[in-house]
Parts: sequence; structure tokens; C-alpha cells
Amino acid sequence: MAAEIVNPRSESKTGDTEHEGSAEPLDSFDPAFALHRGGKMAVQATVPVRDKDDLSLAYTPGVAKVCSAIAEQPELVHDYTWKSSVVAVVTDGTAVLGLGDIGPEASLPVMEGKAILFKQFGGVDAVPIALNCTDVDEIVETVVRLAPSFGGVNLEDISAPRCFEVERKLQERLDIPVFHDDQHGTAVVTLAALRNAARLSGRALGELRAVISGAGAAGVAIAKMLVEAGIGDVAVADRKGVVSADRDDLTAVKQELAGFTNKAGITGSLEAALDGADVFIGVSGGTVPESAVATMAKGAFVFAMANPNPEVHPEVAHKYAAVVATGRSDFPNQINNVLAFPGIFAGALQVRASRITEGMKLAAAEALAAVVGDDLAADYVIPSPFDERVAPAVTAAVAAAARAEGVARR
Amino acid sequence: MAAEIVNPRSESKTGDTEHEGSAEPLDSFDPAFALHRGGKMAVQATVPVRDKDDLSLAYTPGVAKVCSAIAEQPELVHDYTWKSSVVAVVTDGTAVLGLGDIGPEASLPVMEGKAILFKQFGGVDAVPIALNCTDVDEIVETVVRLAPSFGGVNLEDISAPRCFEVERKLQERLDIPVFHDDQHGTAVVTLAALRNAARLSGRALGELRAVISGAGAAGVAIAKMLVEAGIGDVAVADRKGVVSADRDDLTAVKQELAGFTNKAGITGSLEAALDGADVFIGVSGGTVPESAVATMAKGAFVFAMANPNPEVHPEVAHKYAAVVATGRSDFPNQINNVLAFPGIFAGALQVRASRITEGMKLAAAEALAAVVGDDLAADYVIPSPFDERVAPAVTAAVAAAARAEGVARR
Repeated sequence: MAAEIVNPRSESKTGDTEHEGSAEPLDSFDPAFALHRGGKMAVQATVPVRDKDDLSLAYTPGVAKVCSAIAEQPELVHDYTWKSSVVAVVTDGTAVLGLGDIGPEASLPVMEGKAILFKQFGGVDAVPIALNCTDVDEIVETVVRLAPSFGGVNLEDISAPRCFEVERKLQERLDIPVFHDDQHGTAVVTLAALRNAARLSGRALGELRAVISGAGAAGVAIAKMLVEAGIGDVAVADRKGVVSADRDDLTAVKQELAGFTNKAGITGSLEAALDGADVFIGVSGGTVPESAVATMAKGAFVFAMANPNPEVHPEVAHKYAAVVATGRSDFPNQINNVLAFPGIFAGALQVRASRITEGMKLAAAEALAAVVGDDLAADYVIPSPFDERVAPAVTAAVAAAARAEGVARR
Repeated sequence: MAAEIVNPRSESKTGDTEHEGSAEPLDSFDPAFALHRGGKMAVQATVPVRDKDDLSLAYTPGVAKVCSAIAEQPELVHDYTWKSSVVAVVTDGTAVLGLGDIGPEASLPVMEGKAILFKQFGGVDAVPIALNCTDVDEIVETVVRLAPSFGGVNLEDISAPRCFEVERKLQERLDIPVFHDDQHGTAVVTLAALRNAARLSGRALGELRAVISGAGAAGVAIAKMLVEAGIGDVAVADRKGVVSADRDDLTAVKQELAGFTNKAGITGSLEAALDGADVFIGVSGGTVPESAVATMAKGAFVFAMANPNPEVHPEVAHKYAAVVATGRSDFPNQINNVLAFPGIFAGALQVRASRITEGMKLAAAEALAAVVGDDLAADYVIPSPFDERVAPAVTAAVAAAARAEGVARR
């Protein structure tokens, strides 16, 4: 993408120190730059600090009583600080969007974007924490150390397979929700759309055989979730073909995957797996030839979620499939994580859940699917990200599931 | 302070799970609790996210261009994220107010308070980061790892002598301002008040001999700053008496202190040092007997800054001193850090300073003193924290000093 970028230094002819390091030319080059100038978020006080009386309550000496109370009864931190409303959005910048390993600073615009979506859609405060370390144990140790300040941790854009280990280790060590959105957010929304597609077609999940293209964070999590939800069978393909126990090149995560997927025992290419499959789920960034889509079962569902270029173009997919979804906002049925993560964290924080369980994620998917209700149609299996019913429905379902599963602390 | 705290659990007779862990009784017990419920701060979006067009600029796909630009030209992170307006308020909870080592969670109300003061007085966004580690190298490593997300680091309430090493190591490793406010904020405001007291009395700083009670973070930093500013002599006393080279019980920091203070070669108690001294600066939390204050030189300045109980009561001090200051808002001449840190960081961030130099701190003190102008009087040697001229004056002076000293990057 380098060629698209105007270099402000090469434009500068004045040497004006006032503008050294700034980049006004980019602002006029693309509206995204103008919008991003100065960042997209701010902190605000929610209590007044207008005079010395205010100051004596919000700061010294009044604050000392609150500190002492928390020192006596640690759980009061949830009542008298913003801990229970604030989530750390943690990345190491190694798998940012489709851009790959661009480092922590360059990932910040995405993390700020995530933070404002948390606020806008879930009323959850969120703070970008982009780390300049990529070692699993260093990431884990760092997040554990800063965890006292936060009510939850949203992991973001950490490359596979490290992302799995980072999440697992953090979940073991922390008593607050740790959630890798690229995995579980995507899985929840995918399952919601799949539930509705099945309902529309009058089919049970148990009848369906799905093929997932991509065995990264999203692919692995979707496979697990679909199996949890009772799908008939699911095969996952990486660049070398279907993940199956007979392959000798599998990472630990893929070996685990091979253990609970692919009951049909398919070997070989993605295309081979698609032959007769009921569901295609693309989270790979690759492409699928039309000829392979044509071999899918009648009335298939094609969720081609790669961004910006779906694995198969929706118009092509529609020739063969009953339901088509993508990751794009300019086609119907957008599989967008923003439908899930704000409500999931809002629900978990509301009841001070110690973690986010499988049951809470399944409840989120059900609640999200249910928002569609009687308006269900082939081009409406998943609500719009701007449907205001979504976050409250997900929040309530997740909070209730947390209580039911015994991980709620209020 | 434990006896002051109502235990909400012992009050609860209903077992209502909805209220388990919450603490409404405290809210009616003291207005500070009611004010603190839910915390004192929030995050807000500064760009709209109302529809899919907004989303496509603030988030995918538009954000990808901004990420790519920063990956190409790292300094653009300052233009297109909130990095250059956000400061991490970092503590380990070991020296919180006068409460001591109460841990990270219990320190959060103070860190939130600090954060909202940053915003209110300096327009600086700030995020509380309370760490659950106290080892110097662990604190340093953690802050280095999360530094990509922040434009500066304000260290807060870390106990001496670790605070000195944490700050020094972070300054060596980071190219953003690292500032331990308990040291330098206090020193800047103290110097400003002292400058004005001297001006009022028609005396030069070089004529004055000062005695500081307390060799912790604030005492050490004030001593350094007064020497930098050209004070005649300064002696620092800890609990064992005046810090002098002949003592064999000095920490490394106090040995260094002995090297550049106490030119008069005073040994023995604080009281001995006060005999004939022109300035008393109390940052100890101890008390000074009236008889010792009575031995100070004619026209002395007494800055008794311990909170909530000044080392000598202002009414007593006035019997002997020409100028009296305290740390309290209910007496004239309040030495309050909020007069310094918001403007110091605002100025440093404005010019993207790589660090905060001695010159920038001295400039802050001069600018702060100058706000008093012609209204100078014995009960007005330092402006009110709510004087709206303060932060802009400090900001401008610090930014100019950063440029003059070559640490500004724009």
C-alpha cells in the first residue's frame, strides 16, 4: 500500500519546523486521514471538578476514604472505580486486519476504532493497549500486571497460533473476562447467521455439513463453536488442504482441531471438501473457484467473509446458494463482529463475570439470531450493526447465561 | 482508617443477590463514596459512528490506510491517533497518599482522580494503570511494553527509593516524557512559591538557606530543584537527622543528596538545622515543635506541606514567619501539584518532547510564579488551582523550553 501514501516530507519545501512531522497532505488525500487526525477518542470526567469542594471529594482528602475502603474490602473496587466498566483492548500488532505484522504503533488506529465501537454499541469504556513485545509469555505477564486496572481484556489482532496460547494462559491467571475477539466474536456472529439460515431453510444444525476455509484464529474458533452448537460435521481447510489426523504437518492447535472435526474423514483440497457440503465459511482471504461452489449441496449457505474481497463474489455465490453472507457492509447479511463483542462484554461486566464461558457465547449467538425474528429472509439472516435492539439483547442474554453458569459475581 | 468504614455485608440482612458485593450503605455514609460510585471517568468517541459510512472511515476498511501510513512512517502515529494526547498514570500502589502500600486496586480512585485533573486542568487524556508488581525491573519492563500506546508516562505513588530507579530506567529506555509527579510536580510548585516569597521579601534565592524535612520522593526532588535554581544552601533531614556525608546509614540516593546539599555541614537533628534557617519545607508528615520554628531567621518562609496535618500549624508558623504555605486548600498559599503536572504534560505533548528536562521544569516554576504578578502578597505567593491562567502559562513555558533545549520534535 506504500504507493498510495503521499510522503509529507517530500512535499515539504519550507522546512517550517511548526509542521515538521505532521502530514496535512494526507488529510486532503483521503477522508479517512482527516477523520483520524488527533485520534478518535478522549477521556472525560464523569464527576465535576469545578471548585475546591469538588476537588476535596474527587481527589484529596475525600478520595482517601474510598481507597481505604477498597484496601479493606477489595471487591469494592468494582463499585467505586471505573474498573468494572473498562476493558483493555490489547494487541501486539502482529495480525492487523489484512495488513499482517505492522507493529503496535501502526495498529493503534484499529484499536482506537475498536474502543469507540465498544463505547458506541455497548456503553463499555475501552482503552487501546498496543504492546511492543510478541513473545507469548511476555504478553501474558504484561497483561497480568496491568489487569488490576481493568474489568476485562479484549485481545485483538494477535497472530495465530500465539493468540490461542496467550488467551488460554491469561484465562488461567486472571479472574476477569479475557476474550480474543478475532476468534470468538467472529464465531458468535457466524453461528447466529447460520442458525437463522437453517431456520429459514427448515433444517436442523445437526443435518448440516460445513466447510471452513482458514485455520487461523477465526477458523479454529468457528469450528469449535459450530461443534458446540451441534452442527452435523465441520471440516477445516488451511492452505495445504483439509485438516485431518493423517497429516504430519499440523501445529498443536490443528492437531486438536483434527480430533473433533472432519467426522467424514475428508482428505485433500478445500474443493474436495466442498463437494456436497451444505455450508461454506470463508475466513481465509483466499478465493474459491465458482466450479467448487457449484458442487455444493442444493440450498447451500455461503458465508464468504474475507475483506475486502470475499472468497467468492456474492453474485456468483447466489447462483448456487440459498443464503449468502459476507463481511462487507455493501452486501446483505454482513457478518460483523460489532454485533457481538460490545454486548458480550457489557453483559459480562454487568454481572462481574469472572470469565466468558462457552454457554455465554452460545447465548449471545442465540440472542443475536433472535433479533431477526419474523423478518427472517434470505437477505436478512443477521441484523444490521446499527440495529439498536442488538446490544441490549446480547447483553441481557450473556448476563443471564453468566448467572446460570455460576461465573457471575453479582 | 478501618474503623471509619461501614461494612456493607454486616448491614445486609436480605441476601439479595442483586446487591451482593455492592455497598450502598457507604454511599450514604460519606459523600465521597456516593461521588465515586461507578468511577469518575469514561471514554468518549471524538468522531461519529452513526452509520455505515462513518464506520467505513473510522473502522474498516478506511482505517487500514491510516495503519499502513503509520507502518510506513512511524512518526505519523502522533498525527493520526490519540497517542500524543494521552498519558499513562502508572502506579504500583505502594505509597498512596498518606496511606502507604495499599496495593493497585485500592490506589485506583487516586489514579482516576489524577486522570480527571489532567483532563480538567490541562486538556490531557490520561488512563490509570495500576500494576500488581512492585519489582523495579518488572515495573520498568511493563511500562516499556505498553509505551507505544501513550505519549507520556506519569509515575504516581511509587515508594522511595524504588521510584527514583523506576523513573531513571524508564527515561533511559523511552523516548516519551516520563515524570514522577510526587517528585517533580511538588518541586516545581514549591520553587514557584519560594521564588515569589523571595521576591516579596526583596531577597535573592542565593541568599537563602533552606531546610527540608523528608528525604522521600518529594524531599529529594525539591532539594535538587532548589539547588538547580540557585538557592544558597539546602539541608535535608530524614528521621535520623540531617543527611550529611559523615553518616554511614545512607541509601545511594541519600549519598548523592549529601554530595550536593548541606554546604554548611550541619549535623544532627532537624531542629538543629532550623536554627537560623530562612526556609522550612515540610514534606515528611512529621511535626516540628514551635520552639524550633522560633529559632529560624527573621522573615522566614515556612512551607508546611504535610496533609492533612501540616508539620507546624499555619497559625503557629505565622508568629515567626513572613510567608506561610501548606498543602491544604483551606489555608492561603496551597502548594498543590495540580498547578504543575497538567501544564507540564500539555506543553511536553504539544511539541512531542522526548523527555522533560530540568530546564522545562524550571520554566514551569517561573511561569507559575509569574501568574501571581503584581498581586503578590504574603498570603498570595502561589496561584489558586482554579486560576484559569495557570495551565496555559505553564504549557506555553514548557513547550518553549522544550524547543530551546532541543527535545521538541515539532
